[in-house]
Amino acid sequence: MARVLTPQSEDFPRWYQDVIAKAELAETGPVRGSQVIRPTGWAIWERMVAEVDLRIKDADAENCSFPLLIPESYLKREAEHVEGFAPELAVVTIGGGKELEEPAVIRPTSETVIGEFMAKWIQSYRDLPLLLNQWANVLRWEMRTRLFLRSAEFHWQEGHTAHATREDARDYVRRILHDVYEDFMVNILAIPVVVGRKTVRERFAGATDTYTLEGLMRDGKALQMGTSHELGQNFAKAFDIGFLGSDGKQHHAWTTSWGVSTRMVGGMIMAHGDDNGLRVPPRLAPVQAYVMVVKDGEGVSEAAQSIHKALKAAGVRVKLDTRTDVPFGRRAVDAELRGYPVRIELGPRDLKEGNVTIVRRVDGSKAAVSVDAAAKAVTDALEADQQALYDSALAYREAHTSDATTLAEALEAAQDGFVRLPWDACGEDGETQANQQGVSVRCLVRADGSVPDSGDEPGLIAYLARSY
Amino acid sequence: MARVLTPQSEDFPRWYQDVIAKAELAETGPVRGSQVIRPTGWAIWERMVAEVDLRIKDADAENCSFPLLIPESYLKREAEHVEGFAPELAVVTIGGGKELEEPAVIRPTSETVIGEFMAKWIQSYRDLPLLLNQWANVLRWEMRTRLFLRSAEFHWQEGHTAHATREDARDYVRRILHDVYEDFMVNILAIPVVVGRKTVRERFAGATDTYTLEGLMRDGKALQMGTSHELGQNFAKAFDIGFLGSDGKQHHAWTTSWGVSTRMVGGMIMAHGDDNGLRVPPRLAPVQAYVMVVKDGEGVSEAAQSIHKALKAAGVRVKLDTRTDVPFGRRAVDAELRGYPVRIELGPRDLKEGNVTIVRRVDGSKAAVSVDAAAKAVTDALEADQQALYDSALAYREAHTSDATTLAEALEAAQDGFVRLPWDACGEDGETQANQQGVSVRCLVRADGSVPDSGDEPGLIAYLARSY
Repeated sequence: MARVLTPQSEDFPRWYQDVIAKAELAETGPVRGSQVIRPTGWAIWERMVAEVDLRIKDADAENCSFPLLIPESYLKREAEHVEGFAPELAVVTIGGGKELEEPAVIRPTSETVIGEFMAKWIQSYRDLPLLLNQWANVLRWEMRTRLFLRSAEFHWQEGHTAHATREDARDYVRRILHDVYEDFMVNILAIPVVVGRKTVRERFAGATDTYTLEGLMRDGKALQMGTSHELGQNFAKAFDIGFLGSDGKQHHAWTTSWGVSTRMVGGMIMAHGDDNGLRVPPRLAPVQAYVMVVKDGEGVSEAAQSIHKALKAAGVRVKLDTRTDVPFGRRAVDAELRGYPVRIELGPRDLKEGNVTIVRRVDGSKAAVSVDAAAKAVTDALEADQQALYDSALAYREAHTSDATTLAEALEAAQDGFVRLPWDACGEDGETQANQQGVSVRCLVRADGSVPDSGDEPGLIAYLARSY
Repeated sequence: MARVLTPQSEDFPRWYQDVIAKAELAETGPVRGSQVIRPTGWAIWERMVAEVDLRIKDADAENCSFPLLIPESYLKREAEHVEGFAPELAVVTIGGGKELEEPAVIRPTSETVIGEFMAKWIQSYRDLPLLLNQWANVLRWEMRTRLFLRSAEFHWQEGHTAHATREDARDYVRRILHDVYEDFMVNILAIPVVVGRKTVRERFAGATDTYTLEGLMRDGKALQMGTSHELGQNFAKAFDIGFLGSDGKQHHAWTTSWGVSTRMVGGMIMAHGDDNGLRVPPRLAPVQAYVMVVKDGEGVSEAAQSIHKALKAAGVRVKLDTRTDVPFGRRAVDAELRGYPVRIELGPRDLKEGNVTIVRRVDGSKAAVSVDAAAKAVTDALEADQQALYDSALAYREAHTSDATTLAEALEAAQDGFVRLPWDACGEDGETQANQQGVSVRCLVRADGSVPDSGDEPGLIAYLARSY
């Protein structure tokens, strides 16, 4: 088979670009940092949306929609927030042919405008918690962009909630972190994630506490896959989100925000892809089974139709390819590139013996299976290969996670994956040094792996890595 | 019951504003013409998206995502298009703190940027048809805005396709018109629509043929619920969308575009709502059945839980309200306002006799039903009331559609609904006169009600009305 992609071992960033182009996932758009997400890429994102949305609804948050444009003045109300986002804003100065009295920015995130409305909607403790979410596009002017991973405009969900107490806000942010994000990443994306707390330096602009989920890509670099934030009373004070408590007194609410984005598509590509293309986890895959007519004749089309139908009836997302005018090799290469988990090949020769060939993307294995047993073999393979991808990602991570006791040791080991270093041996000075060498503290965890309530807890472990 | 809304007969626009506010559907946003769509309103839109998206996928179009920002120069390539949209553009002139070399506009619609990419992706007739769709936000600076009906930013789907022949383009646009839009509006929204052809004056900027679906609201005004356009070779020439034909020669493609938007939420409100609030058609409703505990005690909660469970198992979208600390009257008024199709009330008194009360929003009727029969009674009511709403909207339209033979007669009758006037008795001059009096030609149809291929066909009937 001709080489389609630059091998990962030769040039990982080039492999990433190649696979996005060849699998027709996305392209660079005309305005700086914009991207066109093509149907193959968008279908993957739609599946992510469906699965994350289910979990968000289970966490009782309600979807809604706030405006794209935010008055510039809103951003300025929370000092750290504007400092963080001002350099990245796209500003609309002309509307309907006229210079605007007040410029409007395209939302880089929506804490400010949502804060403004929360203040109107919340009167008493009975209105709390207020649990909102929106699926939206946001825009942050980025100088160095990379498809899916870092683009000016990107798609995400942003959750925004208000609570009566700090404890309630914290519990909710943790619930989102674990029950929505971690559950989705582990069980659907098949990516093991380190869940921890960001250092002060890496905190979201305006937050008091930021939590993160970090995945390890197949080049040994970490990817921040999602974050959730306690905003304390910062935005509540800036936007006057107050409520009459059950104690009869006026209080400021405690707010949170949390998001995952199209960046996860990049993470899925880099955590599972191989030299032949994507390997999409079966539970995520928009196409789980790809039924290919290799060559027409002798009942092949009929058998393909019937397997297609049986798989559909079994709840499998299936695609039928009868394009026998396109060379088989090209279609097979495309199927590998796009990472369809299972391919069912039907040709007259096999079929004469009552068989079809089942090819599993996860390991490239091929097996002849009788027509009658095909549907069951496919559903079994999907189940097994979801687990196999997770196991393989976990094994990779374990092989690329080391322990260090000094910063120097950690910085060297961080060239090849995660390093666990006692936070006491690093600290903020160590973090500065690490950053200068292209390594960052991805997060802090407790010795038992759980998420700390504060960066000051004794005995914390820092995860260091190079990152996207 | 205290009056919650301004009655429709007293002041319809005020009723519309009232119901949107009281049912917590949406609010005006801070930047001119923007809107905040609250969870109750957004849930309705999400259901519309789900149903329309199913139909679009059945029509073989694939979802994707093009950028929000379009280089200003793109808009200028198609002369009529830029003339139509230039006055409505929001322009980004600053990005990342710097003046941009070329300003970017927020998409008012995406023919231009999609045309640019179609030109790259299409090489030969084998690449056609190319059937794309995106769910997106767009922005058109509007001077007179009204929630859902006319807002600067709105949400929609925009389909964009390219075909090898004019016939193929036309067939596809008609397929979308009937199989996607008309089917959805009639069978899910329960709104009868007049499907026809726009006059030259009402055509989309850059189209050769525009088709429309027009609904009649309960104030006798028409609402354009969706449109589909043949763009001829206008955009193909402007963006050089060419292909090598099966004849070995180079051709320009024939393109189409088509869209429905959050405006349909406004249409649903105004076609079905009454003086007590929304009446959401059961097949659309995010909450189809609302199980209310009137008063606790004597097994009421248990019975409510069990009915909730039975309805869920029957595939009904159901919401359980156990807030007995909130007055019953207020909760009942809220349920009416939000238009939940069926309400199941449970109190100790009824339950002692083994009954619950089923209240149907469509006509306010109440019936005592035994607990065991409740689930079946609800599903029967949902089925019947979907039809009842359609029948009622159709009866309203029939009562408010008249025939005229002269323009003068038509202009008078158009104060109270649709008027059918022979196009020969109107013509473009008549259309100008009508416009001056606040009446427009909504569309042209054939005498048998079918959609004409051209505005020049003999014997066409014009539908005139006041409109949104």
